[in-house]
Amino acid sequence: MELEFLRWIADRFPSPESPLVRVGIGDDAAVLAGDERHDLVITTDMFLDGAHFDLCQTEPQLVGRKALAANLSDLAAMAAEPLAAFVSVGLPSDNAASLARLLYEGMAPLAERYRCPVLGGDTNCWSGRLVINVCLVGRCPAGRAWLRSGARPGDEIVVSGPLGGSILGKHFQFEPRVSLALYLRDRYQVHACCDISDGLALDLWRICQASRCGAVVEAERIPIADAAYRQSAHSGRTPREHALSDGEDFELLLAVSPDEQKRMLADPQLQGQIFPIGRFCSERGLWMEEQGSRTVLQPVGYEHGRS
Amino acid sequence: MELEFLRWIADRFPSPESPLVRVGIGDDAAVLAGDERHDLVITTDMFLDGAHFDLCQTEPQLVGRKALAANLSDLAAMAAEPLAAFVSVGLPSDNAASLARLLYEGMAPLAERYRCPVLGGDTNCWSGRLVINVCLVGRCPAGRAWLRSGARPGDEIVVSGPLGGSILGKHFQFEPRVSLALYLRDRYQVHACCDISDGLALDLWRICQASRCGAVVEAERIPIADAAYRQSAHSGRTPREHALSDGEDFELLLAVSPDEQKRMLADPQLQGQIFPIGRFCSERGLWMEEQGSRTVLQPVGYEHGRS
Repeated sequence: MELEFLRWIADRFPSPESPLVRVGIGDDAAVLAGDERHDLVITTDMFLDGAHFDLCQTEPQLVGRKALAANLSDLAAMAAEPLAAFVSVGLPSDNAASLARLLYEGMAPLAERYRCPVLGGDTNCWSGRLVINVCLVGRCPAGRAWLRSGARPGDEIVVSGPLGGSILGKHFQFEPRVSLALYLRDRYQVHACCDISDGLALDLWRICQASRCGAVVEAERIPIADAAYRQSAHSGRTPREHALSDGEDFELLLAVSPDEQKRMLADPQLQGQIFPIGRFCSERGLWMEEQGSRTVLQPVGYEHGRS
Repeated sequence: MELEFLRWIADRFPSPESPLVRVGIGDDAAVLAGDERHDLVITTDMFLDGAHFDLCQTEPQLVGRKALAANLSDLAAMAAEPLAAFVSVGLPSDNAASLARLLYEGMAPLAERYRCPVLGGDTNCWSGRLVINVCLVGRCPAGRAWLRSGARPGDEIVVSGPLGGSILGKHFQFEPRVSLALYLRDRYQVHACCDISDGLALDLWRICQASRCGAVVEAERIPIADAAYRQSAHSGRTPREHALSDGEDFELLLAVSPDEQKRMLADPQLQGQIFPIGRFCSERGLWMEEQGSRTVLQPVGYEHGRS
């Protein structure tokens, strides 16, 4: 429902002609003009007990951590540095106070590490299950936010880490790629970016849609996480299938020129963080190349509202 | 729980020394330094079916409208003009799409009137009841946000409209005082402000706490809404008690110098929007004056997490 509904909202609430709005609905975050030097980047995500996590099986600290980390990942995907977090919670009435503390304790280390203080929020009790919503405000140099729409035919496709099987633990424990994004932003030219939240194939397809181009992934170059192998052992799917379609890896997916990619691969600071996996092309579509033959790659992954 | 918990968060997440953070937790909204000319003002509120409204008895459009309007009221209380809204929803799975449309249709007129486009959000389905979270970003001239902490002994207490009985309808249909706030901001000196969301007595007490002063309310001058009289007929409480302690009037509560108050009362543009009801004093406490005698006024109203 998510994509279709976002289109409906975008039609119903046309972004005004205001020069303040640089990017509205449809990217990892919205971009508003700040001053001459900075743009504001704003993102929000809601996490619901029973839909995104199961509080019976998960420590509340992990839930709080993930709610903040996923939003930080969206800011990273836009090349924005975090400024402040706003956290709303709907707490089950029995045990609300201690649950709230555990949620915030899970957030605190990340909030400190990325200098993203919680500056506001709304704390509620109710008879329902836990809900937590995080809204983050960040900023980046004016006009420099990484959009999904900037990939060009001939650009290399780069991911920032091994993929797949995140459900075995990484989806709670992942490190949002804020530091990597800010490092790249200040030293390299990145044409387009998103974070891999819904699966490599689906998120790559979204960059292609926004950039009006296609992409060819080289199967052998996809970095596959150990967890994807472990999961493959009993899932009936190959490790590569997990790497292509599992959600919540929260790695960055980047479009960069071949020259920039070469520079990145030669940068000792980027060791183990830059994995070239293919290239963008002018023909619209998504393909996978393996041993010289090319097959259509389905943009399959996690779609919100379809679970 | 709200106040105590906010204190805990404020201790746990000390606002950094960063010159970017002008106001953290504890006011109607947070204030971040923008550019030389503007500050950013950010607020968020969560609304839960069964706690803040009952979807069985309420049109979804009204719920959507209120979620946006209450946040607009927080921006108005800070003298901020709205820039953009970010709306997250948790939708009951049966009927999610049509419910989402109705919520957004309820928001659209306000979003257009106050030039506050929905620029982002997060749409989810789940097995629970409806949750809607709105985060608003606004701005005001640098250093000019109205805080709760600026009231001075001798200042007049002013409210922007009749109070009480909002549960009979106004709590859904109120007009957030954005236009009034921006008019006052550009022409008058306002020392402190908040919106009356939890009841006149409680919100006045909060301004006193933040401003380290007290206040004396003149009972006969409190403007009482017709709805407070209607409700009094079967509530066992007087209309004035309703005006003092009912929540969700979403009128502005202002501290202004006697001279500014005189100017406001003489301003034809402000006819019917400026109601002087007493004055701030140096002695800490809250009192009500009636026919020459003074009694202690209890800061009773709606407290979050106590319902």
